[in-house]
Amino acid sequence: MSRPGGFFDVASRVVGRSPVFSRLLVVLAVGGGGVVVYADSRTDPSVTGEQNQAPPKKKVVVLGTGWAGTSFLKNLDSSMYDVHVVSPRNYFAFTPLLPSVTCGTVDARSIVEPVRNIIRKKGGGIKFWEAECFKIDPTNKKIYCRANVGTNLEGNSEFVVDYDYLVVAMGAKANTFNTPGVIEHCHFLKEVEDAQRIRRSVIDCFERASLPNLTDEERKKNLHFVIVGGGPTGVEFAAELHDFVNEDLVKIYPRVQELAKISVIEAGEHILTMFDKRITEFAEGKFQRDGINVKTGYKVVNVSDRSITMVGKGAGEVDVPYGMAVWSTGIGTRPVMLDLMKQIGQGGRRALATDEWLRVRECDGMYALGDCATISQRKVMEDISAIFRVADADNSGTLTVKEIQDVLGDICERYPQVELYLKSKQMKSLVDLLDDSMGKAGGEDMELNIEQFKKALEHVDFQVKNLPATAQVAAQQGAYLARCFNLMQDVEGNPEGPLRIRESGRHRFRPFRYRHLGQFAPLGGEQTAAQLPGDWISIGYGSQWLWYSIYASKQVSWRTRVAVVSNWARRFIFGRDSSCI
Amino acid sequence: MSRPGGFFDVASRVVGRSPVFSRLLVVLAVGGGGVVVYADSRTDPSVTGEQNQAPPKKKVVVLGTGWAGTSFLKNLDSSMYDVHVVSPRNYFAFTPLLPSVTCGTVDARSIVEPVRNIIRKKGGGIKFWEAECFKIDPTNKKIYCRANVGTNLEGNSEFVVDYDYLVVAMGAKANTFNTPGVIEHCHFLKEVEDAQRIRRSVIDCFERASLPNLTDEERKKNLHFVIVGGGPTGVEFAAELHDFVNEDLVKIYPRVQELAKISVIEAGEHILTMFDKRITEFAEGKFQRDGINVKTGYKVVNVSDRSITMVGKGAGEVDVPYGMAVWSTGIGTRPVMLDLMKQIGQGGRRALATDEWLRVRECDGMYALGDCATISQRKVMEDISAIFRVADADNSGTLTVKEIQDVLGDICERYPQVELYLKSKQMKSLVDLLDDSMGKAGGEDMELNIEQFKKALEHVDFQVKNLPATAQVAAQQGAYLARCFNLMQDVEGNPEGPLRIRESGRHRFRPFRYRHLGQFAPLGGEQTAAQLPGDWISIGYGSQWLWYSIYASKQVSWRTRVAVVSNWARRFIFGRDSSCI
Repeated sequence: MSRPGGFFDVASRVVGRSPVFSRLLVVLAVGGGGVVVYADSRTDPSVTGEQNQAPPKKKVVVLGTGWAGTSFLKNLDSSMYDVHVVSPRNYFAFTPLLPSVTCGTVDARSIVEPVRNIIRKKGGGIKFWEAECFKIDPTNKKIYCRANVGTNLEGNSEFVVDYDYLVVAMGAKANTFNTPGVIEHCHFLKEVEDAQRIRRSVIDCFERASLPNLTDEERKKNLHFVIVGGGPTGVEFAAELHDFVNEDLVKIYPRVQELAKISVIEAGEHILTMFDKRITEFAEGKFQRDGINVKTGYKVVNVSDRSITMVGKGAGEVDVPYGMAVWSTGIGTRPVMLDLMKQIGQGGRRALATDEWLRVRECDGMYALGDCATISQRKVMEDISAIFRVADADNSGTLTVKEIQDVLGDICERYPQVELYLKSKQMKSLVDLLDDSMGKAGGEDMELNIEQFKKALEHVDFQVKNLPATAQVAAQQGAYLARCFNLMQDVEGNPEGPLRIRESGRHRFRPFRYRHLGQFAPLGGEQTAAQLPGDWISIGYGSQWLWYSIYASKQVSWRTRVAVVSNWARRFIFGRDSSCI
Repeated sequence: MSRPGGFFDVASRVVGRSPVFSRLLVVLAVGGGGVVVYADSRTDPSVTGEQNQAPPKKKVVVLGTGWAGTSFLKNLDSSMYDVHVVSPRNYFAFTPLLPSVTCGTVDARSIVEPVRNIIRKKGGGIKFWEAECFKIDPTNKKIYCRANVGTNLEGNSEFVVDYDYLVVAMGAKANTFNTPGVIEHCHFLKEVEDAQRIRRSVIDCFERASLPNLTDEERKKNLHFVIVGGGPTGVEFAAELHDFVNEDLVKIYPRVQELAKISVIEAGEHILTMFDKRITEFAEGKFQRDGINVKTGYKVVNVSDRSITMVGKGAGEVDVPYGMAVWSTGIGTRPVMLDLMKQIGQGGRRALATDEWLRVRECDGMYALGDCATISQRKVMEDISAIFRVADADNSGTLTVKEIQDVLGDICERYPQVELYLKSKQMKSLVDLLDDSMGKAGGEDMELNIEQFKKALEHVDFQVKNLPATAQVAAQQGAYLARCFNLMQDVEGNPEGPLRIRESGRHRFRPFRYRHLGQFAPLGGEQTAAQLPGDWISIGYGSQWLWYSIYASKQVSWRTRVAVVSNWARRFIFGRDSSCI
């Protein structure tokens, strides 16, 4: 969608020069088919007088209220900025509990917190608009939004917001890999509404299979639940569904155990491949004992209203009739992000590339975090000459061990892959690596020329890995970015980051560094597999209680915490609820 | 929808004669476009041997799982019958709490209980099918059902169920009085889904009114909430919404108090006309103090997507712009009931007429209760000659006081209007009435001929009133009917009912008699008006606590009781939730 911005551009350039009017913006929106007048009625006390004017606050616009956006908001010192939030949902959802919502273990409303409550706790001043951003214009620093609420409500639903800083945290959509029939016939498990729909659908399948005039064949088809994708979400949903069926539904639906079947289809060799091999093995064994059918090495190629078609290695096409299917094979890119990436020369990518400070390259004032972005880590080998030059303090053309050690901290901070590489080789310092590369123990007196330095570090960049698309990463990025915004003025004369390699001086901030705090894979029957930092593995009932306590403590508000814990208690006492509400 | 039943009729008549095959029924369903084979696989242990056969249980089919149907099910001795339940909803909903669901005070799932749980507590044996009955054939004692679940689920969704006894408890639908635009633009408040939709819609209105590019005029329009109908439901919703806006939303939406407006439109002179005048006055006063706009004497004639058009007495047409409208003006008849009434010569009625034992006249084995039925009470004046004949034990052509007193109990039981009339005239016994009618104190020696008897009772029938369409009536009818079913065999030789007036002997059962236990009208701000039996009126905070305790105690299961009470506690601590989930 293109918006010729003649009047608009002129107007905004005019008002942009005058701080007095910088809050009044008249926009000619062509796409919406009408004149949109955006008059921000709040007058800054600072701009009422002509003299003693404080500089107007910079305007920060946050797109999205998921893990990244909410974490940013919660940690931001909102008194320093004029903060606006745009999101199609007026709540934050605690997504790791979505699989629990699908089976009625936890209520949908227990895992959502209204954004406006979060804003209120920050003392107000932050503005929230429930709207979808459908276009980002990085050149003119504007975003185009459309409200999607209501049917007969009054007022033009499109509006334009300008920004000084834009924090893009729009998340991702489900990835269908363009498989035909997926969007029409499968459920996803990304949004709260998805979980609610799955819940109703599960009950529908059981009610339908209980009708009097069906053959056993038809009953079995209706009670075949297929999960496509053996990642953490799919596996947790399969486990939760198995428990729901075998602990609760079995009591009220006749012949359930004989007829119902749960299948997990995974294209790879194993399920839960992002976890340690011990967890994968335990999970596959437990699912086999539970009677959950795990089909690895099968790729789904088509979904119709009756059956799922998949292709196995050397097995040809297999057609599986099903009652309900959940598609959970990873994340894809939202159209607005595709459009933005095309504009800024990142076309063809899966996610918006940022630097290590979460800044979108080539876009002034734009930051991206969470599932919609990936950090493209600078390679050591790209900068190797510059690194050598910075390290070579005496310009001797060779590096001594002391020279290397002087800049080692900065290098490890700027290029975390160096540290990861040392760790993977079980080396303690760069000196061990240099020794290893030289083929001898050079000790403190060793000197390297540029070629030897290059050779020593040539494999380091293989350690560069994309961060996983998890809530944990998004939340840490949000908190990191908020800290940067809070310290923006403090670091101006007093930078805290590592040495600049290509230029002089220091970076203002340390680059973002992800701290992995562990990951859970609930496997049903009150057993959970946990992979904790330092590759500690814990599987069983104890981990389940760890899971309960961590998930309770991570809730965004006391209201949701109390709600979630009481939902768990309710399920222990009364079982899961099987009404289709 | 007509179904030529050639093969079907023959088949069912054949199997109907043989008890061994009475559970196997082959149905040629033409409407569904396929052959429906209904093979009920459960074989009664009683029919496996040729000898010593117990008579097969009579088949009771219950239509609906609302107040009437659920109350019937809960009280029925299900071991005596082969019980089947057909309902489009697999849960019972505690409808008096629906207004609380609209504003998030109580969760939707806290007020619903799965029917299958209720069935399980009865020891199983009862079958439940989630389907809509779309045709009742009283001649052949069959009902035609259609499952409405799922989109890609397998199996013909139409099936036919035969019955020995049919308990029709399908409730009613909202009545629009054929006002144009109501179905398209208004919310109703009859089902749980309605309440959930209203909740989302209220939040939508607030989010929409918060968007940047609206005029104040547009914001006000979006925040104008209109309730059409000043009955208990409409008034309670208005009060609940007022509290939601002023206690919770005011904290998170700017300028709410200035812009939001709630209007109640009522065609009559007052709101809450079914209550005592003191309650009506208090409610109107409280609403005025709260700023809720009550427009009485206005009839809505049209609803468009922008505005509601109404006509006031002498005021002409008024056009009111609105953001959300809730239509709550009473109940109408479901299409399947209209069709049934047409078949049995009750066309043109609002609800199915039953006798005082809840039996549908002219339909063998059919009972109707709850909102879909009305009891048509036999008039005294229709039977006056027969009553005289029964009372005149010595056939003298005159009635002595003793003769009257001998049958007085039976007459009052059979014609409750007699008792109501005496009460309304503040008379203690029929003798007072006769004295009054004769114009003198005749005392014990009085004798009446038929004309004098007629004259004495001529105004009695004005006391015949239809029962209100409330949960209380439906629940009492369900319990009453279940008791009749439980005692069906016991009363065969030992009837407990009053003397038959037109025939000899006694009725098997006492006719249904409604006991009014009081009614509440929550008015917001923790104040409730209560009209208790004996015309006791209580208004204020105390009644609110009475309301809390009665509604908690009336919950259908411990799970919902705990859920509702903890929802109330949650709202006291954390307020109502404003996410749009």
